[in-house]
Amino acid sequence: MPELKGNLLVAQSGGPTAVINASVAGVVQEAKKYPAIQEIYGGLNGILGVLKEQMIDLRAEKIETIQALKHTPAAALGTCRYKIDFKKKPEQAAKDMERLFELFKAHNIRYFFYIGGNDSQDTAHKLHLESKKRGHDMRIIGVPKTIDNDLPHTDHCPGFGSVAKYNACTVMEVATDVSSMATDDGACCIIEVMGRGAGWIAASSILAKRKPNDAPHIVLLPEIAFDEEKFLAKVRETVERLRYCIVIVGEGLRKPDGTEFSADKSRLDAFGHPVLSGAGELLEELIHGKLGTKTRSVKLGYAQRCAEHFASETDSQEAAACGAAAVRAAVEGNSGFMVKIVRVSAQPYKWTTGLQPLGDIANVEHLIPRDWISEDGFLPNEKFVEYARPLLEGEVKVPMENGLPVFAVLDKKRIERKLQRRG
Amino acid sequence: MPELKGNLLVAQSGGPTAVINASVAGVVQEAKKYPAIQEIYGGLNGILGVLKEQMIDLRAEKIETIQALKHTPAAALGTCRYKIDFKKKPEQAAKDMERLFELFKAHNIRYFFYIGGNDSQDTAHKLHLESKKRGHDMRIIGVPKTIDNDLPHTDHCPGFGSVAKYNACTVMEVATDVSSMATDDGACCIIEVMGRGAGWIAASSILAKRKPNDAPHIVLLPEIAFDEEKFLAKVRETVERLRYCIVIVGEGLRKPDGTEFSADKSRLDAFGHPVLSGAGELLEELIHGKLGTKTRSVKLGYAQRCAEHFASETDSQEAAACGAAAVRAAVEGNSGFMVKIVRVSAQPYKWTTGLQPLGDIANVEHLIPRDWISEDGFLPNEKFVEYARPLLEGEVKVPMENGLPVFAVLDKKRIERKLQRRG
Repeated sequence: MPELKGNLLVAQSGGPTAVINASVAGVVQEAKKYPAIQEIYGGLNGILGVLKEQMIDLRAEKIETIQALKHTPAAALGTCRYKIDFKKKPEQAAKDMERLFELFKAHNIRYFFYIGGNDSQDTAHKLHLESKKRGHDMRIIGVPKTIDNDLPHTDHCPGFGSVAKYNACTVMEVATDVSSMATDDGACCIIEVMGRGAGWIAASSILAKRKPNDAPHIVLLPEIAFDEEKFLAKVRETVERLRYCIVIVGEGLRKPDGTEFSADKSRLDAFGHPVLSGAGELLEELIHGKLGTKTRSVKLGYAQRCAEHFASETDSQEAAACGAAAVRAAVEGNSGFMVKIVRVSAQPYKWTTGLQPLGDIANVEHLIPRDWISEDGFLPNEKFVEYARPLLEGEVKVPMENGLPVFAVLDKKRIERKLQRRG
Repeated sequence: MPELKGNLLVAQSGGPTAVINASVAGVVQEAKKYPAIQEIYGGLNGILGVLKEQMIDLRAEKIETIQALKHTPAAALGTCRYKIDFKKKPEQAAKDMERLFELFKAHNIRYFFYIGGNDSQDTAHKLHLESKKRGHDMRIIGVPKTIDNDLPHTDHCPGFGSVAKYNACTVMEVATDVSSMATDDGACCIIEVMGRGAGWIAASSILAKRKPNDAPHIVLLPEIAFDEEKFLAKVRETVERLRYCIVIVGEGLRKPDGTEFSADKSRLDAFGHPVLSGAGELLEELIHGKLGTKTRSVKLGYAQRCAEHFASETDSQEAAACGAAAVRAAVEGNSGFMVKIVRVSAQPYKWTTGLQPLGDIANVEHLIPRDWISEDGFLPNEKFVEYARPLLEGEVKVPMENGLPVFAVLDKKRIERKLQRRG
């Protein structure tokens, strides 16, 4: 494969994670090794900012700042949820493509790395196909990122290990709290976690359980239709036995009819809008109402996906390695692939990176296999534990000042515009 | 003061914290130094368990287990919210007192330490008065504990520094997340925190702000009546200027008429009960409804008061020191006092412990002084920052196994009963 000289553009997309910046660091640090890669640009706010020609010079950032991205949460370049949608918005999509390739040519972008989840890999795939069609020689590689862990073909996704670690720790800590308060009346606590339609995040709370009676006692996964009667019976039995019960619920829990449990349209807010009340709060009401047990809920929300102070070092290293692997793959002549993590050995845990065609990724949601969940559907089993446990190992070291973390702040030296402003 | 020989009883009461066990460790480790103190007992579930004669032998616990209490959250002895209430329940209160002194005599309890907040100090005070009345020679000292930081006469309360540290860190992390997602449409995030009628916890989120534009942008304190119009104007202005806005709300926020903001009785749950919906969620609806800005909320709930993995080492050391100081005070002949923390110097931060009569503590709620809050009421000022900053210094080191913390587990060797079971 002939050497391809030109500039590099990297951007971040979708929901932030604790380690998405580690992937940027991996891209930049690896890219500096190859003379063929000339300028290293960062696109602001994903493809949305790139369309506005908002790019910064990552070679101008201090070496220490790039390294510090490995302990900095969320998207340092900014992110977006913008889709290039040929089906629903064909005219806009065509205009966007025209604009992007105008920009790629004007700035001699020959390497493009898009760090993101399912939708972002779809965007990368479209750009790859378009580059072929237009004959613009360029190499496009997707870097996986999603706390939801629902990308196919990769063993797991960077971002997942850190949210799993933080949430499992929270479950252990909340369990000490609730159990120490529990008197004969009993007490429940519901912890609502993210993950949309996939239960990976909810399931990973199982790692808090070291002994059979430890929390979590019930994990409600979106993969298993919610059975109110069985659930309440299980809560009652647990409270009778242990005096307390810790329930984890994935936000995307579904009713038997397939609708979302939390999409309770029967309640309207002060402005007449339906309240998409959290699943956790609804379960709190349910348990208190039907069993009379004192129940509280916790909604970690955004706090769980950016908890750098307790991020997984394994996760951070893998995220950086995925960024570096993307650059290597591109320099070697590949385009149209997503980097994936391949588990080489379960015990001891060993991994490497591989490549998967982007066309295999888009619009496929990877859910928890049914045989990784207990028969009654209320807890992930030992297969899940074996899978998830190594991903939480190690703690990212974050420098502290006055007892609080210090994160990287990019200088963000802007790249001069070469295009007309978009109307 | 003549030496008083006898046994020691320590118990924990009220809501758990990240460092209430450090106070138990301080009591036990200090008590072992004095030959006058014979057995060292722990009462289970506070005074409620003591009434049931549920006590364990703390001398039988391994030295390492006692030391490990310093990095173990929540109440290792169990806790309760039981009050001895002579006003509302005089008969029960008299019965309880009779029972407690029967127990103190049967087990030769001469030293009693009660670790807790306002109500618990009140219980300790009543026991002290009762011991005088009954002529049972014993020494009773209260050890302060409350994340709410609302006890009077002490500079601050063990437990507060750790929740302040965890919450401020969470604000910094959530801010990186929300700001990296913010596009021209703007975004808000509401973080609801504990503290009941006092705003200390909400206010301490100000420590996340290192530069003027950093989060938090608005802190809603229970000390300042909520002004909807001014609040919405401030949110709008912040989103226009920064594209995002992080709001912290203390759960006990009040309306101008003095009622709790979250006590919205107009909504009923599925069972017809009024929903005490969180202040955070109500603000989420308010902002989305009135300004149309995308808004999410986080309710940390119990997670914030037991977050040992990011607890303050300063807080932990002070909590242990308060336990030790209580024992020293008692051995020296004192009874009827609460240990307090005295700030000796602001910069550098230096502290010591002192004693305050228990009668000065009960039923006094210490709130944030008005001149520690900005004129518009939306942010604590530099006086608050100077006060709170040193309390977050240092991180408690928690041992890890498979990437998750290992907490102390007491053996809980039970003390043989000497009384008739209570009917």
